[in-house]
Amino acid sequence: MTVTLGEIAAEINAELQGDPTDEIINVASLHNSAPGDLTFYVNKRYLADLEKTRASAVVLAAADAPTCPTARLVATDPYLAYAKAARFLNPATQFNPGSHPSAVLDAGADVADDCYIGANSVIGEDVVIGSGTYIGPGCIIEANAVIGSHCRLHANVTLLERVEIGARVLLHPGVVIGADGYGIANDSGRWLKIPQLGSVIIRDDVEIGANTTIDRGALENTVVENGVKIDNQVQIGHNTRVGEHTAIAGAAVVAGSVTIGKRCMIGGASAISGHIEITDDVVITGMSGVPNSIKEAGVYSSGVPITDNRTWRKNMARFRNLDELARKIARMEKQAGK
Amino acid sequence: MTVTLGEIAAEINAELQGDPTDEIINVASLHNSAPGDLTFYVNKRYLADLEKTRASAVVLAAADAPTCPTARLVATDPYLAYAKAARFLNPATQFNPGSHPSAVLDAGADVADDCYIGANSVIGEDVVIGSGTYIGPGCIIEANAVIGSHCRLHANVTLLERVEIGARVLLHPGVVIGADGYGIANDSGRWLKIPQLGSVIIRDDVEIGANTTIDRGALENTVVENGVKIDNQVQIGHNTRVGEHTAIAGAAVVAGSVTIGKRCMIGGASAISGHIEITDDVVITGMSGVPNSIKEAGVYSSGVPITDNRTWRKNMARFRNLDELARKIARMEKQAGK
Amino acid sequence: MTVTLGEIAAEINAELQGDPTDEIINVASLHNSAPGDLTFYVNKRYLADLEKTRASAVVLAAADAPTCPTARLVATDPYLAYAKAARFLNPATQFNPGSHPSAVLDAGADVADDCYIGANSVIGEDVVIGSGTYIGPGCIIEANAVIGSHCRLHANVTLLERVEIGARVLLHPGVVIGADGYGIANDSGRWLKIPQLGSVIIRDDVEIGANTTIDRGALENTVVENGVKIDNQVQIGHNTRVGEHTAIAGAAVVAGSVTIGKRCMIGGASAISGHIEITDDVVITGMSGVPNSIKEAGVYSSGVPITDNRTWRKNMARFRNLDELARKIARMEKQAGK
Repeated sequence: MTVTLGEIAAEINAELQGDPTDEIINVASLHNSAPGDLTFYVNKRYLADLEKTRASAVVLAAADAPTCPTARLVATDPYLAYAKAARFLNPATQFNPGSHPSAVLDAGADVADDCYIGANSVIGEDVVIGSGTYIGPGCIIEANAVIGSHCRLHANVTLLERVEIGARVLLHPGVVIGADGYGIANDSGRWLKIPQLGSVIIRDDVEIGANTTIDRGALENTVVENGVKIDNQVQIGHNTRVGEHTAIAGAAVVAGSVTIGKRCMIGGASAISGHIEITDDVVITGMSGVPNSIKEAGVYSSGVPITDNRTWRKNMARFRNLDELARKIARMEKQAGK
Repeated sequence: MTVTLGEIAAEINAELQGDPTDEIINVASLHNSAPGDLTFYVNKRYLADLEKTRASAVVLAAADAPTCPTARLVATDPYLAYAKAARFLNPATQFNPGSHPSAVLDAGADVADDCYIGANSVIGEDVVIGSGTYIGPGCIIEANAVIGSHCRLHANVTLLERVEIGARVLLHPGVVIGADGYGIANDSGRWLKIPQLGSVIIRDDVEIGANTTIDRGALENTVVENGVKIDNQVQIGHNTRVGEHTAIAGAAVVAGSVTIGKRCMIGGASAISGHIEITDDVVITGMSGVPNSIKEAGVYSSGVPITDNRTWRKNMARFRNLDELARKIARMEKQAGK
Repeated sequence: MTVTLGEIAAEINAELQGDPTDEIINVASLHNSAPGDLTFYVNKRYLADLEKTRASAVVLAAADAPTCPTARLVATDPYLAYAKAARFLNPATQFNPGSHPSAVLDAGADVADDCYIGANSVIGEDVVIGSGTYIGPGCIIEANAVIGSHCRLHANVTLLERVEIGARVLLHPGVVIGADGYGIANDSGRWLKIPQLGSVIIRDDVEIGANTTIDRGALENTVVENGVKIDNQVQIGHNTRVGEHTAIAGAAVVAGSVTIGKRCMIGGASAISGHIEITDDVVITGMSGVPNSIKEAGVYSSGVPITDNRTWRKNMARFRNLDELARKIARMEKQAGK
């Protein structure tokens, strides 16, 4: 797709310093671009790459414009402006509606005419699929699931019975939505499974990464609100609610019956304990453990960063006796006071 | 399914304070119930919900009975009694035996007449499947695997060759059992793969959550004993043995050649190192690291809980020098002693 | 497969102390072996097993030879020598070339004549598959993917469009390669998805464990170099590069735009933050967090090992105030100095 710099500037609302008739073919990275490419600069670390870039134009902040050797698209938030340009130059892939002959559609399924159902996919009884939705190969949609319009389910997605998906939802391969929550009760040393009778509601404009799992509620529904973006290999337990426009990075684990607010950012490899509430606008940095509710917006951390192994061994020996160490200090302080 | 309160009281062995002929349709949550619902109360946090509940009856402890505005089922362990009631009101889904026409069954497979094999499932050579087992769509059962009676494999489960599954086992979508263990030997800087010749034995009444993986043993078998309940996205390495009635929560990682005892509870996002033993009745709280064997029953922890980011930064700066800090204290103590 | 001890000694380059015409059927563990078995001894913990072993021969170090009650294969690195023997006795499974009738091959796919394509697999447009490659059941290979020769894709592997796989690559079930990287830009509180236009390149002799995910690059490619061995449930973000002969253990999380050097060993359940570099020959022990670049080879750690829950509670109370504690010590030191 070829567009002019002027068209891009208008689309992304940036100030063009350059020839508006120059043609752009696609986006590229700073250090690996060629004429016809549009690139972006936001991180001082890559200043040398900016100075040498062969791209036709660069999206950047006003302060960085003077260092740029080529045409510039000056924007307040260059990363966002670049994102918009990349979307403009790479519209969603089109597909021909229909069903692959190997797909298995239940006679009772209600699939809009302009959908595509991929090879070896299985669409169960009374499933409803909205207009313009693409179901890739190997997907399994169980009975009574409802999928909105203009969704894209990549290969090997599994939606279990009664799960509801909104509009423009993007599900990557290996996603499992609606498996039973982990509900067990102890009966004299044996575990009794508790029926998981709720479902999962995924609202509009949600994206869910590869091999992420979201369990159905025990009695009520597990809910993921509008605009939530979830990375790969995330686990979300039963009855949990994820608020609008929250982002959850890779391999984070959210236990059951958690309420996460709006516009939160949950770092990768974090773990959030069950039955707690996290208010709006909370940022949890990577690999943090969240055992209790968070009632104030802000940034929270607990990840322990590496040191060389020798220092770590010594620190850990002390750490195991930290309470004793603190008591010792208290005693010394008392004695000194005398 | 409609039953009377009297029938439920008898089934779950609870004392009924109310009309035994009242009809119950299903279980529901305290705050979102209606006449015809049975609910339960175990957590003081939900006292306000109890006082306003519209349910027909509530399962609770004797001490809480006076606060309950409606019929009560008084039980010693109300959560367990509720679990039993939920199971009574929601018996396992029935299915019509047979094979979907798109399923691929090897001529040498031995599948009991009353099983169901779902759409696009693949049943390999000499596989044996016991009476009353349901294999959902998209499952792949490789050669010589053996599945017991009354199991349920949800969609997209993969069992590799020779894996053995007991009776009444429940496997959720994306489960992979019997992939090669991670066995490599270093040969002058290159890794040589070591053949993984063992298998996996899953015994009776085991439940395994979505996208959990259990590797085959190197020489012997990986074994999961009776009644073990494993949540989603758990990883269990080769040669590991999980004892009876142990529960492993979401995203826990158990390395290879680990022996876990009976009735243990492994918290979510925990990691257990290889070649260690954990005795019976051990509780590991969430996000803990277990580098060494545990020889005594009890509760063990290492997860580091979050603080606000500013405090965390300061604490971490000190933590990196914890050994130095402890030495300083020792010196001060010595000096004070003089 | 039956071979003589003499043939094995020659194959693994070990010194035979025993009868070279003795026949070996397969490898087995020390404590569970029988005549006809070859086993190995590398860990003093298993000395009692060595003394009682019923195996026909044992691979071990020279120093341990005297304790061995049966024939010995003495090697400098007994574990490596055992690995070679196990490979010699268990050559790769053969298969008959062809396609299962239920496989779906696009007319434009270019599949070598001696490949096998399993039941219900889907091979997309213009896919290229090299000589001697085995694609198991339920695999989905999207358009324009390229797979080298002598690869083995177990069941239910998903390769997305344009992904490139080298020769002799082994992919376990549930692997997803080439899903979109987690690229989002914030637009006034809403997340805008950034198109992920790169791909994934997996080079030769790589092994990737069950349910591991490797995302496609945003603009450039995500790259896994020759000889890398990745365990189960690992997540590798977009644009990341993993150097030759690096090993990544189970459930490790590598964020985006990370460069990992050659011959590194990343411990299980570790998490590596985005946009950092780890030099060659770095060992990260299990459950460590790596927030910054590592510029020197060596062993690094941060995992916090468990203590009993009571000690942990007390230590954590102190830990939350570690900075205050350190300040108190500084004050006491100052005062003592006066």
